[in-house]
Amino acid sequence: MPELRKDPIVGRWVIISTDRAKRPTDFIREQVKLKGGFCPFCYGNEAKTPPEVLAYRPNPNGGPAPSRNSAGWTLRVVPNKFPALGIEGNLGRQAEGMFDKMNGIGAHEVLIETPEHNQTLANLPQKRIEEVFWAFRDRVLDLKQDKRFKYILIFKNYGEAAGASLEHTHSQLIALPILPKQVIEELEGAKNYYKFKERRIFCDVIRQEMEAGTRIVSENEDFVTMAPYAPRFPFETWILPKRHESAFENGISHIYENLANALKTVLMKMDRVLDNPAYNLVIHTSPVQDTTNDYYHWHLEIMPKLTKMAGFEWGTGFYICPTPPEESAKFLREASIEAEHPVTA
Amino acid sequence: MPELRKDPIVGRWVIISTDRAKRPTDFIREQVKLKGGFCPFCYGNEAKTPPEVLAYRPNPNGGPAPSRNSAGWTLRVVPNKFPALGIEGNLGRQAEGMFDKMNGIGAHEVLIETPEHNQTLANLPQKRIEEVFWAFRDRVLDLKQDKRFKYILIFKNYGEAAGASLEHTHSQLIALPILPKQVIEELEGAKNYYKFKERRIFCDVIRQEMEAGTRIVSENEDFVTMAPYAPRFPFETWILPKRHESAFENGISHIYENLANALKTVLMKMDRVLDNPAYNLVIHTSPVQDTTNDYYHWHLEIMPKLTKMAGFEWGTGFYICPTPPEESAKFLREASIEAEHPVTA
Repeated sequence: MPELRKDPIVGRWVIISTDRAKRPTDFIREQVKLKGGFCPFCYGNEAKTPPEVLAYRPNPNGGPAPSRNSAGWTLRVVPNKFPALGIEGNLGRQAEGMFDKMNGIGAHEVLIETPEHNQTLANLPQKRIEEVFWAFRDRVLDLKQDKRFKYILIFKNYGEAAGASLEHTHSQLIALPILPKQVIEELEGAKNYYKFKERRIFCDVIRQEMEAGTRIVSENEDFVTMAPYAPRFPFETWILPKRHESAFENGISHIYENLANALKTVLMKMDRVLDNPAYNLVIHTSPVQDTTNDYYHWHLEIMPKLTKMAGFEWGTGFYICPTPPEESAKFLREASIEAEHPVTA
Repeated sequence: MPELRKDPIVGRWVIISTDRAKRPTDFIREQVKLKGGFCPFCYGNEAKTPPEVLAYRPNPNGGPAPSRNSAGWTLRVVPNKFPALGIEGNLGRQAEGMFDKMNGIGAHEVLIETPEHNQTLANLPQKRIEEVFWAFRDRVLDLKQDKRFKYILIFKNYGEAAGASLEHTHSQLIALPILPKQVIEELEGAKNYYKFKERRIFCDVIRQEMEAGTRIVSENEDFVTMAPYAPRFPFETWILPKRHESAFENGISHIYENLANALKTVLMKMDRVLDNPAYNLVIHTSPVQDTTNDYYHWHLEIMPKLTKMAGFEWGTGFYICPTPPEESAKFLREASIEAEHPVTA
């Protein structure tokens, strides 16, 4: 008998196939492979992207500061050459008969995670993954000053099957003048729970999950990595900060170090179990104007691309997950990798 | 400058790319092609499916009635051999700590639209498409008697890219013991509008769209086919009944004839413009226990599969549509096809 489970935060029911659970080898996996060709994100091609808004260029010997848009970088943030939203102008909210519209104002940036074309985020040294998060924090703090923006979304599409149009490993950031629907639902779910219980729902979920253990993949001092109770997709995995923090950018320093540790660990485990799968990764955080609330808990969600979404899912917002989260967590938990050590203070 | 548009029913904002709008030839299309091989849905293989729950077997000469699960059929409905939900048992709602779950009770049926393997729904005679809708209506009326069910979803995945696992043209029906989230949102949006305006939102949308004309694809006496104001996907197209009707199964007879006409017309136009694309089709209708309400308007949504959904969409419920609906409607409106005539009384 399959099971219907309800996500406790947004109230979404999902079908979990328990009888005929799909194991990793049952999916027709599209392993991510490099095709090569000219790449604007590679070392030496800095002029082929719009001018950088941020770059990390180590200068250990203290010589003259390296110049912008030159080589020598380990990480670069550039405006997206084909942005989904435009940075210049006003919001221009207006009616169109009974409809509502506004100008597509926003920022759309690309974070190039390494100059090396044949590298993946999972295989970068933990310290370099940490720098990716610091760079996103820098960009969030800068963009938050623009009062037109209500939400900043950080995400990564890895592999063509996950929607990546360039294969050189990169992440993206979009600043939006509206709150996306799914974010509103999570915020309202968390707020209602807080009103009713006077406790935080994410903290309650973490406590229950850590006691049960069955959906836990790994943990370190600051983070727990787990399969959610009611996943939409097989091997969907969340990384949650153990202590309450409503916004990604407000963490104390070792948060980013341990986040890098947690992410590298789970990505290496996914590579091992699912054979270098395409995936989508998103950070859910509080809205720009409400970053220190009592009820919401920022977190990171990873969705390996193992199935095709079909009419049923699109037509209903109702998902069929062919692998129970207890099984996906077990596969990932037991996958052996050579991990770097987490920080413990 | 791209545009942000809000769907008037569920309040979802989408980004519409206006500058660099993608035309049909800009999409890397995965044209649906047949691979062949053994097919349990073909004529003569009736024993390879679970026993039929409904079949249409024309018997024009009035001989002895043809027997069940034999040949001679034009349309068959069978239980899904690998159902997402099980038909036997009780709901068994229960808590799991702070979580909620229930047994995966439901019906999952497959409607085989034709015995011919190399046929498509678009190319079936209009009369045969009408029979598909009559058959769904028959199944809905039967399943509604089961008080465990709250919602019946009719959908079709056409082509592997749209999630179809068998290539022989078929549709599906799932009866659910819960209301899917997206359905709740549409119902609530329509209900709130009705409370506030004392008018029906779908009727207002249809009136405004027919006056503007820019997003209209085609119409007949009973239906208007149009691109929605704030589509999630390029070439997303809706077929809406012109007169208020809250549930699919409550239509008067010529509704199904004209629905078949509207669907055949738009599918043929899509085949012409988008070169036989994979697509998902869903019918949105009222919940089983509320089929004659004042505010909701059943309709059919078609989403050709032209793009890959990426982390941005999954992470936010926020969509970027690379083709404005005015342009997709224009392409479809102007595509010439040899259509059968709609009924006009």
